[in-house]
Amino acid sequence: MAASVTPPRGMRDFLPAEKARREHALGVIRDVYAAHGFDEIETPVMEDSSRLHAGLGGDNEKLAFAVMKRGLTADDLAAAAASGETLSLADLGLRYDLTVPLARFYATHRAALPPVFRAIQIAPVWRAERPQKGRYRQFVQCDIDIIGEAGALAELELLTATLATLDALGLGGCTIRLNDRRILGGILSSWNVPDQLRERALITIDKLDKIGTAGVAAELVELGAVDASTEVAAQLEALTAADWHLHDGVVAPPAWLDLDAYRDLLALREALPDAAIEFDPTLVRGMGYYTGTIFEIAHPDFGYSLGGGGRYDHMIGRFLGQEVPACGFSIGFERIVDLLAIRDHSRPRAVVLVYDPDVSPSELLRLKDELVSGGTRVRLERRVKNLRALLDRVSADGFDAFAQVGADTTDAASLAFRDLSS
Amino acid sequence: MAASVTPPRGMRDFLPAEKARREHALGVIRDVYAAHGFDEIETPVMEDSSRLHAGLGGDNEKLAFAVMKRGLTADDLAAAAASGETLSLADLGLRYDLTVPLARFYATHRAALPPVFRAIQIAPVWRAERPQKGRYRQFVQCDIDIIGEAGALAELELLTATLATLDALGLGGCTIRLNDRRILGGILSSWNVPDQLRERALITIDKLDKIGTAGVAAELVELGAVDASTEVAAQLEALTAADWHLHDGVVAPPAWLDLDAYRDLLALREALPDAAIEFDPTLVRGMGYYTGTIFEIAHPDFGYSLGGGGRYDHMIGRFLGQEVPACGFSIGFERIVDLLAIRDHSRPRAVVLVYDPDVSPSELLRLKDELVSGGTRVRLERRVKNLRALLDRVSADGFDAFAQVGADTTDAASLAFRDLSS
Repeated sequence: MAASVTPPRGMRDFLPAEKARREHALGVIRDVYAAHGFDEIETPVMEDSSRLHAGLGGDNEKLAFAVMKRGLTADDLAAAAASGETLSLADLGLRYDLTVPLARFYATHRAALPPVFRAIQIAPVWRAERPQKGRYRQFVQCDIDIIGEAGALAELELLTATLATLDALGLGGCTIRLNDRRILGGILSSWNVPDQLRERALITIDKLDKIGTAGVAAELVELGAVDASTEVAAQLEALTAADWHLHDGVVAPPAWLDLDAYRDLLALREALPDAAIEFDPTLVRGMGYYTGTIFEIAHPDFGYSLGGGGRYDHMIGRFLGQEVPACGFSIGFERIVDLLAIRDHSRPRAVVLVYDPDVSPSELLRLKDELVSGGTRVRLERRVKNLRALLDRVSADGFDAFAQVGADTTDAASLAFRDLSS
Repeated sequence: MAASVTPPRGMRDFLPAEKARREHALGVIRDVYAAHGFDEIETPVMEDSSRLHAGLGGDNEKLAFAVMKRGLTADDLAAAAASGETLSLADLGLRYDLTVPLARFYATHRAALPPVFRAIQIAPVWRAERPQKGRYRQFVQCDIDIIGEAGALAELELLTATLATLDALGLGGCTIRLNDRRILGGILSSWNVPDQLRERALITIDKLDKIGTAGVAAELVELGAVDASTEVAAQLEALTAADWHLHDGVVAPPAWLDLDAYRDLLALREALPDAAIEFDPTLVRGMGYYTGTIFEIAHPDFGYSLGGGGRYDHMIGRFLGQEVPACGFSIGFERIVDLLAIRDHSRPRAVVLVYDPDVSPSELLRLKDELVSGGTRVRLERRVKNLRALLDRVSADGFDAFAQVGADTTDAASLAFRDLSS
């Protein structure tokens, strides 16, 4: 049986040191978001299939793990085989993000929530991706969302709380990249992209970092989204090269620029005078549900964003049957947890009692209890021949000191503790 | 769409107040177990189907949600339809407990773990049960396990840590019910129960609370486990009526009593002089994998156990191919969380700023930041006509005070805070 004892493909176990590191980081995130007025909620890991596949999850919908209902009949199986539609076997699925469940949660509980609801969700999501380096099939998302606030206060509270959280994690000095879906819409209109191809055109523009301006231009022509004569590559070059730092406004705005959206971005910039904010008219952020502002946070030390979000004013309406404005931000937890140099100075003293085999269990228990009651973390270790190896191991496990316990040890006060770092 | 916005059947959303209560209780459990030398780990929510259905999960195996692999072919479906075996469609399943994943985890990572490994697992499990009152299809388990310790020290550390945790949760004064599978084995032998029916006989005895001694006796006869002439009911009456408080030992032990096991239980009792311990020779605890001591913790105020566990010395070997002793305890988290009168006195001061519509977002943000930086939790609320209703609501949400913000408010020092409880 020893051949197959790994966790399922693309999923991870967390050993004590890594688990402690993750829980510590999640605790920091939870505390800062709570201080900023957000409230934590939880939803089940599963949602009804019909909700997960309602067209709100973008490409992630295809990656939803399907959960099988019990008691499938031979007829169920035959029907699925005939239709080739395996999804019909499942009435449940594992969530692929926390936004679709939040929209469902808000529709369920609206009467019990404040008019402007600020939600924290810290929880795993699942995607049935082909496993590859750095991509996992189970990973944690940390989302904050503000539902019911149409004004810029929502974006400002999200950005302020997020920057404060990253700061508390030791990731200060971040830059915010800003754009607005209305500005992207203006660019697409100037290229005469037909309505039904706009979503796919945005997905193509989103690949700019990977395939460059020429690649995007070629793909847009291939899609039939633009004429070959449209100078897409040159215009994208100009867009990315321009100095859009938002500080001077735009003296002679280009014809495609949605000025309302641009003025909203300028107002965000003015309300956050201490933050490093850059306007990037080519920033897309994948999801189709965004309707206004979109943003990403980058750190100068890393070549990828630490998280992002945006405004999605029409999604709640899909569940509630009534439009409610909404805006959210998600921290890329798995990306940042490895970057953190976490040292938890508030943790209690941790000691190891190395005991001789002739000490009775009840005696050991009494000593341990005495120390635990005094606020110390205690691990018992049976004496082994190679004491040095044992001490190296418990030191690596984060213990501070050790003492030896023999048959003559009477109480905790008689223990001679020695520092493990010495 | 509004017709179908509930969470999936048998699963629950947690609103802010309930989520805070749960997280607080889990934090207490985590901290006390850590102080007692246990280390938290995490495994993925899914395991390979073959592992979940290896005969170690008892009746729970039938309740495992199956997760479908992607890209099923028509042939896959046809084969499943032909065999009537829907499980063959799934290579993954959601865990139904934390013990099977722990055994797999230990086999995977043994080289990186201490010789005696004390694990904490606090995580959800799933069971595809028919939903009914008080039973959920997703619920949290809090397990501690000690792997690699064959002696009574394992049982003693588990019981001590658990009693300390329940105490910290305000559930002091618990009673421990103790038994040993070897003692149950002695009883079955005295009734001449054939080997292949012993497991089913134990499941029947486990129903004693529900169906009484006569019901158990009738079911054992029906199973063919005992002869109709065996005086099962009378003997069970005697067993439950006897004073087995372990304090006096047994002067004239009955023939069925496994004396080695009984002496081990007496030793546990002696090592825990302050605990209320009762020997109950009819205590079964469902799982088939138990091999020695089994225990349950009960509180005099409640008619059900708050948790339980036992020794399972052969399970790790099923994954590792080498026997390793193990013993575990699980707190019934969902049962106890509603009982707790939790008041978190360490939480920061929480205030609400009620702002006029003419206050600019950037001004609000500046005030909020000033207060948050000083260690206060802050929520912004737009002024509404019915201020009293707003204040009642935020008071119920746990906020301590409020202040009104107008266009003339200059800094946090000029805010006039009023207590919300007044």
